[in-house]
Amino acid sequence: MKIGIPLETRPGETRVASTPDVVKKLVGQGFEVVIETGAGVRAGYPDADYEAAGARLSDRAGAYDVDLLLKVRRPDEADVEAMRAGGLYIGLLESCGEDAILPSLLAKGMRVLALERMPRTSRAQSMDVLSSQSNIAGYRAVIEAAARYGRFLPMMMTSAGSAKPARVVVLGAGVAGLQAIATARRLGADVYAYDVRPETREQILSLGAKPIDLDLGESGAGEGGYAKELSDEAKARQQAALADELAKAHVIVTTALIPCRRAPVLVTEDVVQRMRHGSVIVDLAAASGGNCPLTVADEIVERHGVTLVGLTNFPALVPADASAFYARNLLNLIEIMFERGESGPQLKDLSADDITAAMLVQAAS
Amino acid sequence: MKIGIPLETRPGETRVASTPDVVKKLVGQGFEVVIETGAGVRAGYPDADYEAAGARLSDRAGAYDVDLLLKVRRPDEADVEAMRAGGLYIGLLESCGEDAILPSLLAKGMRVLALERMPRTSRAQSMDVLSSQSNIAGYRAVIEAAARYGRFLPMMMTSAGSAKPARVVVLGAGVAGLQAIATARRLGADVYAYDVRPETREQILSLGAKPIDLDLGESGAGEGGYAKELSDEAKARQQAALADELAKAHVIVTTALIPCRRAPVLVTEDVVQRMRHGSVIVDLAAASGGNCPLTVADEIVERHGVTLVGLTNFPALVPADASAFYARNLLNLIEIMFERGESGPQLKDLSADDITAAMLVQAAS
Repeated sequence: MKIGIPLETRPGETRVASTPDVVKKLVGQGFEVVIETGAGVRAGYPDADYEAAGARLSDRAGAYDVDLLLKVRRPDEADVEAMRAGGLYIGLLESCGEDAILPSLLAKGMRVLALERMPRTSRAQSMDVLSSQSNIAGYRAVIEAAARYGRFLPMMMTSAGSAKPARVVVLGAGVAGLQAIATARRLGADVYAYDVRPETREQILSLGAKPIDLDLGESGAGEGGYAKELSDEAKARQQAALADELAKAHVIVTTALIPCRRAPVLVTEDVVQRMRHGSVIVDLAAASGGNCPLTVADEIVERHGVTLVGLTNFPALVPADASAFYARNLLNLIEIMFERGESGPQLKDLSADDITAAMLVQAAS
Repeated sequence: MKIGIPLETRPGETRVASTPDVVKKLVGQGFEVVIETGAGVRAGYPDADYEAAGARLSDRAGAYDVDLLLKVRRPDEADVEAMRAGGLYIGLLESCGEDAILPSLLAKGMRVLALERMPRTSRAQSMDVLSSQSNIAGYRAVIEAAARYGRFLPMMMTSAGSAKPARVVVLGAGVAGLQAIATARRLGADVYAYDVRPETREQILSLGAKPIDLDLGESGAGEGGYAKELSDEAKARQQAALADELAKAHVIVTTALIPCRRAPVLVTEDVVQRMRHGSVIVDLAAASGGNCPLTVADEIVERHGVTLVGLTNFPALVPADASAFYARNLLNLIEIMFERGESGPQLKDLSADDITAAMLVQAAS
């Protein structure tokens, strides 16, 4: 059973789907691992480390011509072209509804395990790349804010007087939001947080932040622990009630995403205008239209004296750890997909396990 | 008594010598304050705030044609040209030994208070800009390291496994070093620190870091709490003994400066080669030749897989708080320089106070 790990080719992508540590485990389990030359270099994993772990270095064609392809980012047509017909693909598809690449994959007889379809069960948690990568995004968002904010995050008491701690507001208390709260608290900021799901209140408090309570007349708790979309009326109430809290913030980290929908507007232009000159907004929803309408995806812009960070790939800024977590997620997944056979690992029936069944995208679906 | 605050014109400088808060106090004490249009904008202080504080906006010529000029960075010939003859200058001179600008200043009859000559006494501490700005540099250096390091600084326990905390080594436990230690500790890193002055050991421990003990055969404690230069023999012993500790580090922040000397080499090329791929060195001595010979002043370079940050003006990256501290330092200094008179503040005899006497650079000296 041959596993391939290609170099990710999306602009700005620095991660790699597996690391030398994990490759060593896979080889130990009887897999043959082929890695494209230079695939891990940007993440801090040199080719020599993969070789030492038992992988074989190869050109691009060799890394794609495998039984099981491990990818981070969505493949393009050229990637599909290079795949071995009838193989297995594990990676993010990054698609909602109509998708040009999926028919190409299926036409080639590929069986696709789409990582964004991972069920949100406790058994699946150790394989959930959305969760592991969001965690990293939440950490890195606060580091980015600290690097772009013209003041200290912590309170500073010096002989030249003291500086008050920054007031940080985190919108959305999912995995990314909770890690953003934790990181901003570590740095000594005064942290406030808001989420439409009332059950997040206790988690916010447990991290030392103050929950912002708004009365919307309805709950935003949706299926599977995700947020659902609010009614228009509730959205308007939410914006108005949030505005005063947000205008007082010096750093805002927004993480409000609804799967396969445009991100909700939580930070209006009016709020940006009211914020203090030099404040920073890190909009983790930039790729989905942004939680602030002034955010520009993949850019850092200044509007009304406020810096808006619209970077869309924060995990790629922490590529060593992001790849390590991603690789371990995939290792955990692979371990439930295969059983030990005499001639090496044998693929189990993917439709028989609720995790792989949920992720599997087949021609019929 | 007219005070002038010009726009700083050095490339990359974003600070301003006074802030609206401090201007308000100066105006309250009877000073007339003139500020160059846009002087505070890059630091997050709009012109309107200075006007509201009682300052008068002016062009460059007006901000220089004053009794008392408040500057951040060393003036150039054009600045001296614009100064009112016989005026007072407060600012950094940034010069050692021979200096072309000082004769120009003195030829114009300026009395110069050089902020780097501030005595290191407890009474002077609230006026010490070297200290307040070093504090900021130490904080910002660690934020920069976190933003350039491809992994987490804190330990992370996730369902995809855990990431160990980064191993951070801080060289030099002066004001910058101690703040770097504190910030790295806040972020959850495992912090080690080294200083030639044995008396810093307790401060290092009190911040939760581990002191690195080396036997050099002599102490590096110099006059006034600064470090002195070691003998060549002791330097060689220091490098060798440090090398093993440094090679294990993932982030190094170096702060070893000796006034008016080339910075000592503490991180050799051999150490950089031994460090893990993706590690980061922030060299706060970059402007004085660097504590690492591979550092390039004002640049961020990669050598042997390690990122070397050679930025030379970290306070300018936190311009709002840096300017606020600087402005308060200057306010505290001005308060000992003047006494209340019937027609406004009256300059006292600068040679009569040990602080101003130490700072004063006069034609005779």
